[in-house]
Amino acid sequence: MSEKTKKPQKLKARLPRGFVDREAHDIRAVNEMTSKIREVYERYGFDPVETPLFEYTDALGKFLPDSDRPNEGVFSLQDDDDQWMSLRYDLTAPLARHVAENFNEIQLPYRTYRAGYVFRNEKPGPGRFRQFMQFDADSVGAPGVQADGEMCMMMADTLEALGIKRGDYVIRVNNRKVLDGVMEAIGLGGDENNGRRLNVLRAIDKLDKFGVEGVKLLLGEGRKDESGDFTKGAGLNAEQIEKLTRYISITASGTTHGLPVKDSGRDVSDMQTYKIGDVEYYTDNSETTNGLRAIAGDNSTAIQGISELQTIAALIDAAGYGSKRIKIDPSVVRGLEYYTGPVYEAELTFDVTNEKGEKVVFGSVGGGGRYDGLVSRFMGQPVPATGFSIGVSRLMTALKNLGKLGADEVIAPVLVTVMDGDVESMGRYQRFTQALRNEGIRAEMYQGNWKKFGNQLKYADRRGSPIAIIQGGDEREQGVVQIKDLIEGKRLSGEITDNTEWREARVAQIMVPEAELVAKVKEILAAQAEDRARLKL
Amino acid sequence: MSEKTKKPQKLKARLPRGFVDREAHDIRAVNEMTSKIREVYERYGFDPVETPLFEYTDALGKFLPDSDRPNEGVFSLQDDDDQWMSLRYDLTAPLARHVAENFNEIQLPYRTYRAGYVFRNEKPGPGRFRQFMQFDADSVGAPGVQADGEMCMMMADTLEALGIKRGDYVIRVNNRKVLDGVMEAIGLGGDENNGRRLNVLRAIDKLDKFGVEGVKLLLGEGRKDESGDFTKGAGLNAEQIEKLTRYISITASGTTHGLPVKDSGRDVSDMQTYKIGDVEYYTDNSETTNGLRAIAGDNSTAIQGISELQTIAALIDAAGYGSKRIKIDPSVVRGLEYYTGPVYEAELTFDVTNEKGEKVVFGSVGGGGRYDGLVSRFMGQPVPATGFSIGVSRLMTALKNLGKLGADEVIAPVLVTVMDGDVESMGRYQRFTQALRNEGIRAEMYQGNWKKFGNQLKYADRRGSPIAIIQGGDEREQGVVQIKDLIEGKRLSGEITDNTEWREARVAQIMVPEAELVAKVKEILAAQAEDRARLKL
Repeated sequence: MSEKTKKPQKLKARLPRGFVDREAHDIRAVNEMTSKIREVYERYGFDPVETPLFEYTDALGKFLPDSDRPNEGVFSLQDDDDQWMSLRYDLTAPLARHVAENFNEIQLPYRTYRAGYVFRNEKPGPGRFRQFMQFDADSVGAPGVQADGEMCMMMADTLEALGIKRGDYVIRVNNRKVLDGVMEAIGLGGDENNGRRLNVLRAIDKLDKFGVEGVKLLLGEGRKDESGDFTKGAGLNAEQIEKLTRYISITASGTTHGLPVKDSGRDVSDMQTYKIGDVEYYTDNSETTNGLRAIAGDNSTAIQGISELQTIAALIDAAGYGSKRIKIDPSVVRGLEYYTGPVYEAELTFDVTNEKGEKVVFGSVGGGGRYDGLVSRFMGQPVPATGFSIGVSRLMTALKNLGKLGADEVIAPVLVTVMDGDVESMGRYQRFTQALRNEGIRAEMYQGNWKKFGNQLKYADRRGSPIAIIQGGDEREQGVVQIKDLIEGKRLSGEITDNTEWREARVAQIMVPEAELVAKVKEILAAQAEDRARLKL
Repeated sequence: MSEKTKKPQKLKARLPRGFVDREAHDIRAVNEMTSKIREVYERYGFDPVETPLFEYTDALGKFLPDSDRPNEGVFSLQDDDDQWMSLRYDLTAPLARHVAENFNEIQLPYRTYRAGYVFRNEKPGPGRFRQFMQFDADSVGAPGVQADGEMCMMMADTLEALGIKRGDYVIRVNNRKVLDGVMEAIGLGGDENNGRRLNVLRAIDKLDKFGVEGVKLLLGEGRKDESGDFTKGAGLNAEQIEKLTRYISITASGTTHGLPVKDSGRDVSDMQTYKIGDVEYYTDNSETTNGLRAIAGDNSTAIQGISELQTIAALIDAAGYGSKRIKIDPSVVRGLEYYTGPVYEAELTFDVTNEKGEKVVFGSVGGGGRYDGLVSRFMGQPVPATGFSIGVSRLMTALKNLGKLGADEVIAPVLVTVMDGDVESMGRYQRFTQALRNEGIRAEMYQGNWKKFGNQLKYADRRGSPIAIIQGGDEREQGVVQIKDLIEGKRLSGEITDNTEWREARVAQIMVPEAELVAKVKEILAAQAEDRARLKL
């Protein structure tokens, strides 16, 4: 009758490459994190919206922000009616489709957020999965850069709400138009220079890694690393290189640009500072944009981009966000091929140890920018928009590094053991279990093979159960139950406490009348909670 | 440089058939609901686990519970290495794979829950989508039916935690072995009778709809409905039909079976009761299983099945769940082809009006059963398991019908309007907005084109903003802001209140010094909240 008995060969249980199962602690950590993020977004006046995992492939388009090979790397299949559908690769393209499809019903500006899985059909690698979660926020129908500025503030507030200290993160802001203008000014404008511009962006992206001198090599002939490997450069001439590096290094840490703190008379407590030798420099956002303006020449694209950055700088300044939190930084190139105006990136600035044992800056946990073209693909009119995306599992890794997750500690269930398997006895165990649950206490009756009692205590131990309830024949006759404090039991059998008073007040096992079971369990759980709190201090 | 400008034709924005976008109220309702469900499952000692959306197609197998065409109806595609992958169609098959793959690390019994999207590649219809959410709980490595009994209690507690009144739902429990035994006893055992057994199950499934007499027709030659359409029957003989109907109707409402309340001397307040004519009957689970046993004859499969139901009846009885909440009911046939032992189904018993305007019982919102074969497909050993699944959107529809969702009312953001677009003014508006947010108040600065002030107030109105903040040049000079109470404004411009005292205490618009902005907004929001609470009474 059933298929199972007919099947001769044993199936192999395995997941497809690049996909992972998620365990309880991971799920709880993500829930804790996303609920804090959601709180900030709601406070900023954003509302949730969600799209399904499938879209028509043509609706997704060629707008993959962080890939050089758009349209590759997507999971696609053909529907019954021969139309191609794809699993979404980000949350922005589906939002654009949603807005265009419901344009008459949607009230602009449309401020929404959403968390969800996205898919990339790529070769998986360490920490690189084919299904992962993003958490996005977007303002659609928001033409002014004040909307971009708001996004930067919201990112900063989000990171702080998650417990990341001021100074341990920075939101870096740039504008595509500035770099576009510089490219034009050095003769790299136009479609015919697409490839070279991409090489230039890639070189600039290495600023953190190789410093200004390294970037100069990559903009020119190329760069040889310590191992002797040679990376071919973008092949620019000296004048082009000079002009580009002046732009990107204007606020870069480790360059001689920036302003010295000494004698400036400025309070730099809310500004980003860095040292070169003995000299401490600070970054003032307005001075950065002024500096940019001074070297922009007469290129109108660059001038417009700088003016937008000036507005953003003024707004975040008025709202009290110094460069320590949000920093205008012309070296940001992430997604510049994709975005149409301001771009912003959330970077964690503290060090972590990588798999090679090296200390490295943690780096980006999310970013975004203005994408004025994405919705208008569907429409006969412009629909300006800006938004950003957080990489959920990467941010979670960072928070775990900082010990900022696990505040909502979940206690394992109280285990009601099974000594006798007859229906009457099991009815009693079940009743104890329900009585505990009815008082809000996590509890379970042992559901495995009850005949080996040792297995039940082993189960309780592996599960981390705080308490075991035991009732054998003798106890049943007397109407009592044994309550075993498994945490205290562990302590008595090994550890030493220096708090004798507390210790004397508790014993590892106690016998109480059935009617007092729930109250006594509550009391022991409370004592254990107090103990945990004590250990944390 | 960008793709958008090159694209000549306009794309059509539309979703593939059978997929839907979800709006804020829907997302919030699901969150509210799933968090209440999660609370119950956690209390029962279950922990979350999550699998990815893809599995290898062979790992999913042919175990689609509620489809006659297994393996059809699945979204599949071929990976780079030519292996077939499918999107999961339920949450049980992936769990089985997960347990088998991690068998050495997992501590059995393994008690877990998970909510997630599943996919069916079927023709969409009204209320029938190709992506929908399920919420499952399972105990793997739990051989005894006490685990099935626990699932039934957990379903009952879940429905009550969601606000469904006792009496408005019932968990119906049956056992595949009972019906298997009856089938054997009437000569319908064995693989060669698979097709006929399926026809019999389909006939029995119509008990609620057509009553015992209707089912009898469907078990025999067939049944003609009012419109004259004829449904061919299973073709059983009179003796077979008689034996089957005796089984299934033993507790069915509307049959002459069941026990009369009158003169029974029983307290039936926690039991399911029903009336036939003037006589009230009640269902006592132990008496139901005794009744079943009395007519089971000597078929060992049936006897084992009944014995399991007796154990479940005793356990739920001991834990205080009468037949009003959990009812042993031999007419349950849902998933009997799929499950291997007890099956259970959560049914909402109140009436709703369907699309034809007819009053119908709301019906099933979830169910499950024992599936001892699913994990062992991958293993060389038996791994007994039981679990159930809730259809999230169907349950949500039910809760909306009952007015049980929306407790976590979300207030729209306060709108800080933009009167002047110069950087200095916008800096002020931004500062007001941040000041409100810093006090936990949802707030937004208008991000659309600010030049038409009327559009801003229209936006606030459509968005349901409670308050608008306004500061023009005059106010700025004086260092004050206008606070417009948009709710009160609506009231004054149309409605009449009978609470003059409250009315006099508030005015629609007020001017305060900038420094008092936050405090005044808080005051108005509190007054509005009080007003809403008053309206609810």
